[in-house]
Amino acid sequence: MKIKLTVSYDGTNYCGWQIQPNGTSVQGVIEEAIFRLTGEKVSITGSGRTDAGVHAKGQVASFETQSKIPPENFYKALNTLLPPDVKAVKSELVADDFNACRNAKKKTYTYSMYISDVELPLKERYSVRVEKGLDVKKMKKAGKLLVGEHDFKSFCSTGSEVKTTVRKIYSLKVKKTKDDLKISITGNGFLYKMVRSIVGVIIAVGQGKLTESDITQMLKTGERNLESKTFPAKGLTLMKVEY
Amino acid sequence: MKIKLTVSYDGTNYCGWQIQPNGTSVQGVIEEAIFRLTGEKVSITGSGRTDAGVHAKGQVASFETQSKIPPENFYKALNTLLPPDVKAVKSELVADDFNACRNAKKKTYTYSMYISDVELPLKERYSVRVEKGLDVKKMKKAGKLLVGEHDFKSFCSTGSEVKTTVRKIYSLKVKKTKDDLKISITGNGFLYKMVRSIVGVIIAVGQGKLTESDITQMLKTGERNLESKTFPAKGLTLMKVEY
Repeated sequence: MKIKLTVSYDGTNYCGWQIQPNGTSVQGVIEEAIFRLTGEKVSITGSGRTDAGVHAKGQVASFETQSKIPPENFYKALNTLLPPDVKAVKSELVADDFNACRNAKKKTYTYSMYISDVELPLKERYSVRVEKGLDVKKMKKAGKLLVGEHDFKSFCSTGSEVKTTVRKIYSLKVKKTKDDLKISITGNGFLYKMVRSIVGVIIAVGQGKLTESDITQMLKTGERNLESKTFPAKGLTLMKVEY
Repeated sequence: MKIKLTVSYDGTNYCGWQIQPNGTSVQGVIEEAIFRLTGEKVSITGSGRTDAGVHAKGQVASFETQSKIPPENFYKALNTLLPPDVKAVKSELVADDFNACRNAKKKTYTYSMYISDVELPLKERYSVRVEKGLDVKKMKKAGKLLVGEHDFKSFCSTGSEVKTTVRKIYSLKVKKTKDDLKISITGNGFLYKMVRSIVGVIIAVGQGKLTESDITQMLKTGERNLESKTFPAKGLTLMKVEY
């Protein structure tokens, strides 16, 4: 039978989702727990990779198993064998041809920041500090320019080998609550470091280093603007994957 | 001159505020940073101790220094020498007779929990999981019984040597937002493990294990009720100290 597993993890101590020759991966830790639980050497398919240090609230993986454990209880059994920073939150039986990667329709990421002149230890694990004085109104307007189908070539890091750099963003929300700032993006897929690069561009707009027309230009020419930086992994969380 | 320093820390990796023979303390780390900054071996006075694993957003400490660094900038210089999980957020010149412990009038602690059937890695560092089905209305009513001046003998762990176990609670708020549950308590002072013990009692009321009259009884007799447990340190944060 095929199981769809929803997992949540604190990515701080992992080299990312995907199994790597060196370093501990989230995928590897889950596959090991499945092996200890069922005796089966399975290869699980994630909805996509998350980079080193990136967190997940609702990453999805699928795998084939001959286990007699009822699919809806599989996650509970698995949790007894998973470390505290990786836990399964749901498991369900799906059609045999279900593939967590190929069938993913929408993904939502949230990037968390806090506004402060000084580093706050209780915020540092899951968010990134930004200086006061951001023009949030301009950031919201800038974010709207990215919604829709665009060539995001200028928003991805080199080194990603993909057929096309065209992606569709369904929504992009900039939300400020007191001193917390969050950017949530839902799209049909994301290029390598695309979300963290978009965050860098939107913050640069908030700082007055980039303008709306710079963004329009980036989308048109596919050329990276050096005024923006790619934001650190620790602020990024994969919130959910929709099928 | 006397400096009043406000500090924030992630207590996960510390044996608590106070210097201990074994283990790294927050106080020790700050005194070492002051020594490296000024060359002075100072002994700082905290508003009170926080236990191993307890966090602080606004702990206050005072100390005497001959340093020429302007008092209002002292915290910035200090931060360059402090580790990422302990940072100073403010420093100010105070009267020579100011004492962060003796002069503290009110302290506010917040205890953070999340309601879930399953452990969530992204919540586990700073909050404690509680099961669904709590009667929050009853918890709010129970909390109100503790407000005022009472003998909190039955709410402190044995081993604390104090002259009196009478303390005054100014406010106690139980707040549920979606799946997050917070209990915030402001008082003139707290006994050893008193907040975590109060949280245990209020949760036991929410679970139907204790009633309002059990609380009245505890306050009257000074005897501990075994239906409640002392909650773990990691959910507790010292929010602010008022003078």
